[in-house]
This record gives sequence, C-alpha cells and structure tokens, in this order.
Amino acid sequence: MPDKNNETLVARAKKGEITPEMETVARQEGLPVETICQKLGEGSVVIPANNQRANASPCGIGEGLRVKVNANIGTSEAFPELETERVKLRAALDAGADAVMDLSTGGDLEQTLKMVLDEASVPVGSVPVYGAAARARNSRGGVLNMVEGDLFDELETHAAAGVDFLTLHCGLNWNVLEQLQGQGRIMGVVSRGGAILAGWMLEHERENPLYREYDRVLEIAKKYDLTLSLGDGLRPGCLEDATDRAQVQELLVLGELVQRAREADVQVMVEGPGHVPFHQVEMNIAMAKSLCQGAPFYVLGPLVTDVAPGYDHIAAAIGGTAAAVAGADFLCYVTPAEHLGLPGPEEVHQGVVATQLAAHAADLARGREASRLWDRNMSLARRQLDWEAQLDLALDPKRARELYHRFHSEKEEECTMCGSYCALKMVKDL
Amino acid sequence: MPDKNNETLVARAKKGEITPEMETVARQEGLPVETICQKLGEGSVVIPANNQRANASPCGIGEGLRVKVNANIGTSEAFPELETERVKLRAALDAGADAVMDLSTGGDLEQTLKMVLDEASVPVGSVPVYGAAARARNSRGGVLNMVEGDLFDELETHAAAGVDFLTLHCGLNWNVLEQLQGQGRIMGVVSRGGAILAGWMLEHERENPLYREYDRVLEIAKKYDLTLSLGDGLRPGCLEDATDRAQVQELLVLGELVQRAREADVQVMVEGPGHVPFHQVEMNIAMAKSLCQGAPFYVLGPLVTDVAPGYDHIAAAIGGTAAAVAGADFLCYVTPAEHLGLPGPEEVHQGVVATQLAAHAADLARGREASRLWDRNMSLARRQLDWEAQLDLALDPKRARELYHRFHSEKEEECTMCGSYCALKMVKDL
Repeated sequence: MPDKNNETLVARAKKGEITPEMETVARQEGLPVETICQKLGEGSVVIPANNQRANASPCGIGEGLRVKVNANIGTSEAFPELETERVKLRAALDAGADAVMDLSTGGDLEQTLKMVLDEASVPVGSVPVYGAAARARNSRGGVLNMVEGDLFDELETHAAAGVDFLTLHCGLNWNVLEQLQGQGRIMGVVSRGGAILAGWMLEHERENPLYREYDRVLEIAKKYDLTLSLGDGLRPGCLEDATDRAQVQELLVLGELVQRAREADVQVMVEGPGHVPFHQVEMNIAMAKSLCQGAPFYVLGPLVTDVAPGYDHIAAAIGGTAAAVAGADFLCYVTPAEHLGLPGPEEVHQGVVATQLAAHAADLARGREASRLWDRNMSLARRQLDWEAQLDLALDPKRARELYHRFHSEKEEECTMCGSYCALKMVKDL
Repeated sequence: MPDKNNETLVARAKKGEITPEMETVARQEGLPVETICQKLGEGSVVIPANNQRANASPCGIGEGLRVKVNANIGTSEAFPELETERVKLRAALDAGADAVMDLSTGGDLEQTLKMVLDEASVPVGSVPVYGAAARARNSRGGVLNMVEGDLFDELETHAAAGVDFLTLHCGLNWNVLEQLQGQGRIMGVVSRGGAILAGWMLEHERENPLYREYDRVLEIAKKYDLTLSLGDGLRPGCLEDATDRAQVQELLVLGELVQRAREADVQVMVEGPGHVPFHQVEMNIAMAKSLCQGAPFYVLGPLVTDVAPGYDHIAAAIGGTAAAVAGADFLCYVTPAEHLGLPGPEEVHQGVVATQLAAHAADLARGREASRLWDRNMSLARRQLDWEAQLDLALDPKRARELYHRFHSEKEEECTMCGSYCALKMVKDL
C-alpha cells in the first residue's frame, strides 16, 4: 500500500524539488529541468505517473512541450476478447502512441486492464465509471442501480492497479444538467460516462457523487499520485451543438475543479470536444485554457464535420491540428471506424498515424526546433533523390516503403510520377 | 473554328448579360444569377468553359461559392497506358471531383487528352508545357531544345481540343528567377512546368515566352474563351522554403498578369502553394487574394508537413481546410501516393474524398447553409440510430457501408463500440 503521506509530484515541484520523472521529461523535450519543474508546480504541465506503477516511461503533457497522442483501446460486449486488445495495444504502441486508454466495457475488465498496464510502456488511462456501470449491470440488475460506493470502489481499484490518469466526469453537476435541459440539443449527451452519470442523476434525483464528493476523489488521487483528467460529459456530439451553454457551463465547473485539485497538490488536465466547426476550434481552446487557468487541454478530435464516417481520422486530424496550434496539448486519436463500430488493429494504426501527423504539424507551427529539423532532413533527402533516407524519415516508414515499392520502377532514380520530367533532376542537372 | 470576335463570358458579364452558364452555376450554388454575373464581371468568380466544348456541366469557382475540388490524373513514362487513365478518370468522377486535370507526360498525349475531354462531365484542365517539352524531347533531341513556337502550338492545340482551363507559368520571368538564385532554397524548383521553363530560360538566356508574349497568350485565350490558371512555378517544395522572396516575387508578377487578363476580358485564376506550415496558411491566402485583386485562388494542398509520404492526402486535407476557410476557392487534391509515385485508381479515390472532406469542412466554417443542413441531417439520423440514413448521408457511402458491415453485429441497434452502454440509447430511453 502506498504511504498516504507520500508527497505527490506536484507537491515536490511546488517546493522546487527535482525528481527523476522531471529529469526524463526534460531530456525528452530538450528543455531545462527547472522549466519542467516550474510548469508542473504551476499546473500548466502534467506527468501522469501512478506511484504504484514502475514500468512506464514518464511523459510530459502541457504548455511548451511536444503535442502528445493518446490511443483508446478496449473491449466491448460484441468484441470482448482480451487477445484482440493485446494486438490493438501493440498496434498503438508500434505506431508511436504516447499514451493509451483502456475503455473496455466487455469481457473480463480486470484482466484486460491488467494486461494493458503490464504491457504498455507508456502512461495508461481509464474511465472507472464504465467498470462501475458494468458491475451494477451484472450484480444489481441494471446500470442505473449503481450505488455511489460502486463508483469510488472502482476508482480505487483502478488507482491501486496502477492507472496513471483517470477520466472522471466530476463537472457534470445539477446546474450543468439543467443548462442541458434548457438548451435543446440535437444530440444530447454523447459521452458514455456522461450519459451513465446523467442517467443515474435523473433516475435517483441526486447530485453527481464525483462532484459532491470531489474531496474524496482528491484524497484517492493524492494517495496514488493520480492525474485527474476532468471529462466533458456534455461535449457536443455534432457541429450544431458545439459551444453551447451546456458545454460552457460544464467548463466553468471544470475550471473550479482544476483550482481545487491544484490546491490539493493533485495533477489535473481537462478534456474537451468533440465535434466543432473549424472556425470555432481556436476559440474553444482559448476559452478552455483561460477558464481552466492554463491546465493541459486534452481534445477528442475535434471533428470538423459530421458527415465523414470511414474518414473521421482525417476530420479529426484537421481539427486536431487547429486545436494544437491554438494550444491544445494532448490529442486523443479518432480512427476510421468512429461512428461505425469498434476499431480493429488496422484502424488503431491508421488512427495513431493520422493523429501524430496532426500533432507534428502543430509542433511545426508552434516553432518546435526538433520537429523543424525532422522536416528539414526529409527535404534534404528529397533534394538528393535519396529514397532510402526518405523512407526512413517517413512518419510511417513501413507504409511508405510498401507504397514506394508498389509504384516504383527499380531502374529509375526519379519516381514514377514525373519520370524524366522530374523537376528536381532537371534543376540538379543544370 | 471559333469566331475570333465572339465575346467571352466575362465580356458578357461586364455588360450584365446573363448566359446559360451563369444560370446553371446560380442554380447549383443557390445564389441569384445577378450575383454570379457580377462576380464574374469583377473577376472574383470564374466559370471555366471552353467555347469548343459542349459536354461539360459549367462549374463556378470563386468567392462565396462552394469550395471546389480538382483531381489530377495523367500518364507518365513508367505508366503510359491510356486505359489506366480511363479507370482513374472514372474513379475521380465517381468520388465527386468537380474538375479534372490531365497532366500526362507518357504514351499518346493527344489521345489521352481526347479521352479525358470526351468522357469527363466536368471542366478539364491541362498544362501545355508538358506536351511541348515531350515533343521537343522526341523530335528535337531534348526538352531544352524546345523552341518558342512549340509552346504556343501546344497551347493552341489544347485550346482547340476543348480544354477549359490551362495552367501556364507566365509569371516566372527573369526577375523572379534572379530572386530564386539569390534566395538559396533547399528544394529549388519543384513545379514540373516551372522547372522546364526555368531550365529553358537559363540554357538559352532568354525571357520566358509566356511572360514576354503574354498578349499572344491572351489572344488565344480570348479566341476559345479559355480560363487561365496562372501557375506558381516557384511554389515552395518544402516547409522551410515557404513564403520566401522567390515565391512572393512571382506572386507580384501574377497579380500584374491577372489585371492584364481582366482588361482583355479573359477569365483568370491563380495557383498557389504547395508546402506551407499551418501558421502561415491563412497569411498566404490573404496575401495572394490581396495581391491578385480577389482572383479565385487554387491551391495544391498545402501540405503542412514534409514527413508524411503515404499520408500526404491527410497533410493536404489539413492545409486545404485552413486555406479554404481563409478564402482559397479551389483545392487540388493530393493522393496517398504523393512523393512516392504515380497514383492508381484507389489513390485517386482516397485523394478526392480527403480533399472533399477538407472543402466541406471549410464550407461549414464559411457558413454555407446547404453544407450545414447536410451535417444536420446526419446528426438527426445519428440521434435516431437510423443506420441506413447515416450510411446514405456519408461523404463516401460505399466505403462507410463496407466498414459498417465489417464491424456491425446485425442484431444490435447500437454499434459495436458501445453496445448497451450507447450514450444515445441511454439518453433516448430516459
């Protein structure tokens, strides 16, 4: 058992104490460790690292750092197999995900989470309300028969298992639900966790326990040095619902909860939309950063159109780039299976690569030097028509190599698009 | 032969004369025909429609209209087969391309162009300098042995065949070349047409004939009512070369040539980059629109990173959305084969869909009502868990349907991602 009096990372940072986690992140980011320590203390950077877990490499998320990418995996009732999740986890890590979340709702939840925690080399997140709901469904005859203790039991189980960051919809209180009811949305609630909690609140006419007993949440977080990821239960589920009173009312509550987490020396980040038209993306990020006092902001997409099932990874890459350029720090991937079904390993791969592309495009726009050098080296390899170097430097070298060999005629220096009309070759020859 | 004294569309528009082309575009766009006529007369909208071609439906490109998508097809020396191009043309049209360009450089150029003009129901563009260079290579012993007459012969051949819009690198003059030489770029010239002309200019120490004899270009354009697409021969070939003196110097010349085309009653649009970091996209569009007096702006991408071979359609969708939101009117697609080889039919399909997604996302951000209703209808279908309607409304219904059936368990109303934890279902049931 962890020592309840152990200090959290943020408590140490506030005192200016440098820890190995901060050293690692400073090295990864090419920044002075004092900068990492200061930002961690202020709360503009988090390093999710449960004190019960030793096998993950620390990863910094927040202001001034490389934009990070999360991949959601997890079973469902239709696809409950643990082995499939193992393959998906491997696909996510091979493609370069910076973090993974286990969102399982089917099969053996405990074993699946354990497998992810054992095999992932990156920070792991989860959403305890899913497990609480599943257990209520199995042992109490229905999701809405969940009792408050179920929620906190599940939270502590995940924390004790070593989960580094937990999505908790603490901001979805009565006041926010009333805004939703007055608003008249097309899509209502599209967050699974948000819907479970809203359903429970309406059924029992009670306040959200994660809001009412937020101090209890903070106590557990402190004990395991959890990072809270404050969920947006009322994130918009379509473009027309974006940036409405319900969404912003919840964000106001999240800002208040960020402040209380910081006062309790608990690391905290904030989750955001969702479905947002392109021209509202920058404003959404600026508003969230301001209302939540610069807390790291974690977005799901955002998708810039509703009509792209099969291509939602592209819709999310467009919104994700704009969001990260505007200051979002952490991009949750979206796969080509979004809005159609549970992704398989190939969709996981496509989702991670598209989201990394977005994160990297944003890093370039944000002026990150190491990102600029990567692109520069690719351009130098292109100028030299050095194909091996180009393929090695590709975001997804394996896929680039496959396509190259499919299209390339081996005897040619230039590629099959231009042949002897290759502009680079013509200019090189002059 | 067309009557040299026939008035062009823009000449008629200037007099307030309404033509069938304007009526068609007004209907497609849901705008008053007077608005189309006025914008055409001012030059902020073009309707590429060669007076020798009857089988294409008119398509408006420019300010206040739906953002349009062009697909480049065409043979190369390694893949010269006309039949492959027929399949690619079909793929582009089936995916919904608003225009196609035949950029062939291999096989029978004349027959390929004829096939495209015969079978395309949309405006067709071409780049005559490729054909001129190919003929010089075959009959004069080398690309750079091209004589000025070859260029104008090829231009007139394409015009007489019925091509609606021609990319001509008229702005690449000596002054611009000198800026390039003083600049010190990583990638130099990456435009094929630009490289051919620059090479020819340096070899013969002569001014670019398309610039020096621009009046002759305008004469031919007037005769066939061509739309000029002023090419950016010095578009940046990597992020580090973006927005440099060479690029902007050429843009200054293009602005001058736009003005001369308008004075000659010739429709004209301007081509733009290329490779541009995300934070420079909006500025590039605003600059081009200002320097070229609001002429329709046609961008290639722009790609927001250099390191995404295999995923350049996504890099281009990100840049294309930002560009179109900032005012670009016409997006040239980029396929997953970009920087690796000549695309096949599947890459053409992927390229068109990704670029349409970008154009649509921009239309939504620009407040286009018909676009908003499309997304709204999708959201209403989602709320109802009406799968047939969702799949019908998808940007690519066939692909969405394939993925849906791969992932879906037939007995379930909800999808396989959330199963009985479906937020929509929970909220619907409450």
